Amino acid sequence: MPRNAAALIIGNEILSGKIVDTNTTFLARTLFELGIELRRVVVCPDEVETIAQDLSALRSTHDLVFTSGGVGPTHDDVTIEGVAASFGRPVVRSEAVEKMIRQYYGDRATDAHFRMANMPEGAEMIRSSKAPWPTVVIDNVFVLPGVPEIFELKLVDLRKRLDQGQGFHSQAVYTLSGEGEIASLLQEIADAFPTVMVGSYVKWKAEDYRTKVTFDGYDSQAVTDAADMLVAKLDPAQFVRRD
Amino acid sequence: MPRNAAALIIGNEILSGKIVDTNTTFLARTLFELGIELRRVVVCPDEVETIAQDLSALRSTHDLVFTSGGVGPTHDDVTIEGVAASFGRPVVRSEAVEKMIRQYYGDRATDAHFRMANMPEGAEMIRSSKAPWPTVVIDNVFVLPGVPEIFELKLVDLRKRLDQGQGFHSQAVYTLSGEGEIASLLQEIADAFPTVMVGSYVKWKAEDYRTKVTFDGYDSQAVTDAADMLVAKLDPAQFVRRD
Repeated sequence: MPRNAAALIIGNEILSGKIVDTNTTFLARTLFELGIELRRVVVCPDEVETIAQDLSALRSTHDLVFTSGGVGPTHDDVTIEGVAASFGRPVVRSEAVEKMIRQYYGDRATDAHFRMANMPEGAEMIRSSKAPWPTVVIDNVFVLPGVPEIFELKLVDLRKRLDQGQGFHSQAVYTLSGEGEIASLLQEIADAFPTVMVGSYVKWKAEDYRTKVTFDGYDSQAVTDAADMLVAKLDPAQFVRRD
Repeated sequence: MPRNAAALIIGNEILSGKIVDTNTTFLARTLFELGIELRRVVVCPDEVETIAQDLSALRSTHDLVFTSGGVGPTHDDVTIEGVAASFGRPVVRSEAVEKMIRQYYGDRATDAHFRMANMPEGAEMIRSSKAPWPTVVIDNVFVLPGVPEIFELKLVDLRKRLDQGQGFHSQAVYTLSGEGEIASLLQEIADAFPTVMVGSYVKWKAEDYRTKVTFDGYDSQAVTDAADMLVAKLDPAQFVRRD
């Protein structure tokens, strides 16, 4: 069964432009490779109630939800509280993670560090091969940290768990035609192949093509047929390449 | 009066990871400079009904809403239809823009190109000094294109209209302390200065500091006092610099 997903990116630093969010793109590409359709991304501030409301809306309407950010030791790291509130569960402390934090920080460990051992009651803790702490998973929600290096490490580890062997098939056709010139042809192809997502991307800066047309779908034959249809109907002088 | 804002980023290409969204960061930084608090970003697919629903939710709860993407000539460019649906207005064609398109494309102009002259009935068209087409504005909603170069051009032009002379004041303190070690101090400062947003950013990769603490707010004295408090209470050996 095709699955869909949503992401909740948590952090004032993204909304103020201090930090550039790269996690959304990494997540989007990973999910695409796994054949999971990312339907929605919400960026919200570090506020317990906002996180809880957004998460409740997202997790009830998507198969999987990934959160990013707000799991560090400081006052504005309130994601765990927000997730717990969304599920109507108390926040409890994981003794296993507390122990890891004690080992990692030794005498320097503060109360703030131990906040990172908090989790919603009943959450699962997934150990990761390389990331320092486990990932909190509760129902269909994966709670990931905002630091890109750790976000990516954890997501790479989660791939095995998420992979159901159903990826998208993709093809691309590059043309010298502008989007406006082939728009009606693309509409025709999209109508003829309803299972194929047809996308078009204009190169604003100089390249050897003007428009890249992409075809994505679960049905590899339909994807190929849709790309074939474009190549067949395109003015041969406008065709650049296909991949 | 402080104003807040939301962004609706429209496009399957961002949700599939084919295109990296840079418009959100550019918008976030511009709004921050103008003292407008960006409270929420939603990324949604190219679907009329989804766009209409999201926009209705965002524009009723924020002072300003900026949309990005979905205003080109192809079948998946349905933002104008979505915006019109949100306002319950029909889509009409702007004769002025139609004329610009005819001048720009000449004989190559297709029906698809002329779709870019569509707008919700009653929308305002703001001419921009450098961007090829005007920007559609309706009520508190600014409809911007997804192509970053044009998005940025248009937003730079909109600054004058949006500027009410009320920027955020910002200061930063860099320290060798880890976030966990200063977390309770930051909490204390955040409590003492409720009008100041206190943020902390860990450098994951090597730098001359471990944590950057930021102070932002409309009240420049409070921002300075909050930064002063951190410097005063920080172990001097852990202080790196301030800016």
